[in-house]
Amino acid sequence: MDQLTIGVDIGGTNTAFGFVDRVGKVYAKGCIPTQDQEKVEDFIADLAAAIKKKITQLDEDTMIVGIGIGAPNGNFYNGTIEFAPNLRWDGIINVVDLFSKHFRTPAYLTNDANAAAIGEMIYGGAREIKDFIMITLGTGVGSGIVVNGELVYGHDGFAGEIGHVIVEEKGRSCSCGRKGCLETYCSAPGIKRTALELIAKSEVSSGLKNIPPEQLTSKDVAIAASEGDKLSLKVFKETGKILGKALANSVAYLSPKAIFLFGGPTQAGDLIFKPTKKYMEENLLNIFKDKIEIYPSQLPDGDAAIVGASALAWKELSK
Amino acid sequence: MDQLTIGVDIGGTNTAFGFVDRVGKVYAKGCIPTQDQEKVEDFIADLAAAIKKKITQLDEDTMIVGIGIGAPNGNFYNGTIEFAPNLRWDGIINVVDLFSKHFRTPAYLTNDANAAAIGEMIYGGAREIKDFIMITLGTGVGSGIVVNGELVYGHDGFAGEIGHVIVEEKGRSCSCGRKGCLETYCSAPGIKRTALELIAKSEVSSGLKNIPPEQLTSKDVAIAASEGDKLSLKVFKETGKILGKALANSVAYLSPKAIFLFGGPTQAGDLIFKPTKKYMEENLLNIFKDKIEIYPSQLPDGDAAIVGASALAWKELSK
Repeated sequence: MDQLTIGVDIGGTNTAFGFVDRVGKVYAKGCIPTQDQEKVEDFIADLAAAIKKKITQLDEDTMIVGIGIGAPNGNFYNGTIEFAPNLRWDGIINVVDLFSKHFRTPAYLTNDANAAAIGEMIYGGAREIKDFIMITLGTGVGSGIVVNGELVYGHDGFAGEIGHVIVEEKGRSCSCGRKGCLETYCSAPGIKRTALELIAKSEVSSGLKNIPPEQLTSKDVAIAASEGDKLSLKVFKETGKILGKALANSVAYLSPKAIFLFGGPTQAGDLIFKPTKKYMEENLLNIFKDKIEIYPSQLPDGDAAIVGASALAWKELSK
Repeated sequence: MDQLTIGVDIGGTNTAFGFVDRVGKVYAKGCIPTQDQEKVEDFIADLAAAIKKKITQLDEDTMIVGIGIGAPNGNFYNGTIEFAPNLRWDGIINVVDLFSKHFRTPAYLTNDANAAAIGEMIYGGAREIKDFIMITLGTGVGSGIVVNGELVYGHDGFAGEIGHVIVEEKGRSCSCGRKGCLETYCSAPGIKRTALELIAKSEVSSGLKNIPPEQLTSKDVAIAASEGDKLSLKVFKETGKILGKALANSVAYLSPKAIFLFGGPTQAGDLIFKPTKKYMEENLLNIFKDKIEIYPSQLPDGDAAIVGASALAWKELSK
């Protein structure tokens, strides 16, 4: 009899789910739109129906032992999504409670970056590592901090907001209402902002200058940089400089053995990893130098969010 | 039969020790100079002899169950002092091993700030708090980070170096060889540096201008500020501004329930606490606002280091 957990990734546009075994293999998966229903209760009912329909396609003797949910502004302690700016439902949504109306298996919820960190710990590159930081670079910058094999949730469930560490006084405006947060520089939109700033300031010719700013993405910058475009190379150098310095400060707090980078911008490979490592080392306190590795996440590309969420269930069930 | 642990505080000038019970009461204490002996083995032998002599003054049925040692650059995992700049012995000193030649009770070692954090957790204001940060303001700035009731040591035993988080790019020179570390602004010497900068820049009359810079201390600044000296008040405002911002970033990582401040400069009371709290709140991410208290340490003033070190032994023995 196979034991599986369900990994659910609630995103701003779509909600994906999958059935995952103990080693991270995905058996079946599905997806529904996140924001079609006005009431969150109806959305969860739709999601439960879609999951149950998919369960019928699994082997008959499959046992579902738990549900792990990754969500924006997810709070592990409360099983809630709290004030998520990208979802249509306001305030505090008690997701775990709503799930319990449809499933008898235990459900656990955390935010996306924490789920990714647990995924890395259970199935990925951090299986042998007890102290590490997972940094997710995407629309924003998130993080999951693992200390001595346990995720750091903080007293209220909201620890690990490295994306909102202020790295530049009076810096770029952030969606959080403050200025100079790490994510305004090192998220995918942050990389685009750096490119636009350099385009505005620089006389150097660049392929990026042929792309309308509205259409420009961090991926365009990566492609141009990989073809030797000087301005684009400078964008990644600047991004790595800011990220590397922020990581050096993170190390002073936590002294992790490794840092994992996850998400779209990491597809640029050495373009982002090399300057990040260089500037982290340059800014590290002596006792930490040449000790900390920066690795790309080993979570499976397309299924990372589902697999990370499922890992949360495995992790909690093993306690 | 009373059970006691021995708390040992190895300092740059003196090494103090005391016998402490489970609730933090100190039964007897003593002190020897730290740097009289050329060989560290001889220093530990002297220390052991002093401790054993003092044991004879305790009730006959007293049982010594463990030894906790706080030391600069102390490494919990290895039981070592590693490359401490203020001690005469170079390299790595295996202190716990050396203790075991003189005592049969288990010995544990960590750095001073971690010991203070454990003291706060076992005997002080953090007895009911599972997630907090202890900040020690003194010659330097140290910290002990507690997550879910456990001290964060990091993969190598050196986590919690908040004093060496870079808060000002190209800022003040630090003894660590880098620039802009928090401790160059918020330690006692850092506060003095801020005062000297303001004296150099400001036309305002101030009692501090009658004190030779060589003799000026952060305590002078606190006394003058408490008497309404405007320049001195500004020094504390600036100190609190930098500390408050650094704490706001610390909260983004760790989401503690409380932050405790310990050490000489905290004697200034509201002068340091008020601006620190104000600027922390101003710089906090929304979800953390009005949630985190900043408290003065409740460890006993003169015996804090001994008591903190003894708490390490109680903490480890209870595992």
